Amino acid sequence: MTGSGTVPAVPRPAYRRLSVEERRAQLLAAALDLFAHRAPEDVSLDDVAHAAQVSRPLVYRYFPGGKQQLYEAALRSAADILEGCFTEPETGPLTQRLSRALDRYLAFVDQHDAGFAALLQGGSVVETTRTTAIVDEVRRTAADRILHHLDAPEPAPRLRMAVRTWITAVEAASLMWLDADKQPPLDELRDWLVDHFVALLTVTAATDEQTARVTRAALRTETAEGPVAELVRRLLPVLGDASHLL
Amino acid sequence: MTGSGTVPAVPRPAYRRLSVEERRAQLLAAALDLFAHRAPEDVSLDDVAHAAQVSRPLVYRYFPGGKQQLYEAALRSAADILEGCFTEPETGPLTQRLSRALDRYLAFVDQHDAGFAALLQGGSVVETTRTTAIVDEVRRTAADRILHHLDAPEPAPRLRMAVRTWITAVEAASLMWLDADKQPPLDELRDWLVDHFVALLTVTAATDEQTARVTRAALRTETAEGPVAELVRRLLPVLGDASHLL
Repeated sequence: MTGSGTVPAVPRPAYRRLSVEERRAQLLAAALDLFAHRAPEDVSLDDVAHAAQVSRPLVYRYFPGGKQQLYEAALRSAADILEGCFTEPETGPLTQRLSRALDRYLAFVDQHDAGFAALLQGGSVVETTRTTAIVDEVRRTAADRILHHLDAPEPAPRLRMAVRTWITAVEAASLMWLDADKQPPLDELRDWLVDHFVALLTVTAATDEQTARVTRAALRTETAEGPVAELVRRLLPVLGDASHLL
Repeated sequence: MTGSGTVPAVPRPAYRRLSVEERRAQLLAAALDLFAHRAPEDVSLDDVAHAAQVSRPLVYRYFPGGKQQLYEAALRSAADILEGCFTEPETGPLTQRLSRALDRYLAFVDQHDAGFAALLQGGSVVETTRTTAIVDEVRRTAADRILHHLDAPEPAPRLRMAVRTWITAVEAASLMWLDADKQPPLDELRDWLVDHFVALLTVTAATDEQTARVTRAALRTETAEGPVAELVRRLLPVLGDASHLL
């Protein structure tokens, strides 16, 4: 166990027997850490037993379904962490809330790089309708949280499509970032994704009444020092060549 | 064969024997049409034989690898069609070229709905590293064509990431559109995707020199009657609430 995962290993004092729950959590943390850094194909039950410093039969006692069950349990705990990323107090400018959520999400991607890529690129032997359902649930939850922050918990199709499309774009950009040896720096990637959100919401507002309402409300919360103002300032010279369109 | 696929069935005159190439094309057209409207799991070699009005052994003679080989050959021909969607003369406003490419792409999605969804949602039994490579090739080709139209055939990472992220967004929106019983109407979806492209390029231009250059050049080709001018006109009232940011 490298300790780089976001689920810390349960402390294992030398002479105390772990409770059933502690042992299960320890095995799961070891599994998540292994699945985070290798393709599922390259993780064996022996690896998990070795990382947790227990015997292989003990792993089987807790996870009789073997690697598939361990993978699904590890994915479940990863999904809980990811869904937590989008939990954020409903105060302050929207871009600030989104930046904080993205910081957490991108830190997770950074810490679980190989596993994240293997999961989303698909084609893995451990992929089942259950694992696909867990991934879809994370996307749905993230969309619901964002719509909640937009004060539109029951959005019409156009607004929902905009938010869900952006979430797919975040996933895709995260995969490209991993593929590009983690370039550009995470804060640049985060700021670009926030700008992308603002832009997508704004152009959707051009043709959708509900989105126009939530966009105007969101813009009112932004400050003259915030990212939207910064974006507008940087865009003015680019848009200078578009004055014939006004 | 319903004739709704974009690959028309090879004419089958009643008393003429088909050449090897004609027969192969006929079987492939029948297969693509079947795979277009059902999940691969739900297409059998008997279905293909029946649709092409030939015997099952004849299908095997042409495709000894059975369903998997037929699926990959059908996917290959679908990929050729999709890559062709993004071939477009390099004249006129960029948004006009993009609209025409999207019209072709979205018509393909409409005509191959179930197969498109099954392919991109993954988890299918016919999915292999070869099918994944074909899908990736289509994405790469589409990105290359767009970058060519932007006069940036060898883009720096930020511009490439923007274009590739938009392509993923187009795929995701297409899947949502299929899932929403093909709503909103295709021309609305197309216009929104064009607006999305303009918006994503523009915000990327705010922090990337190369993207700023191609965006300014692209904006100069737009007309006062085109979609960018329309977008700007529609956005002015929405942005009215953001005057404190200027």
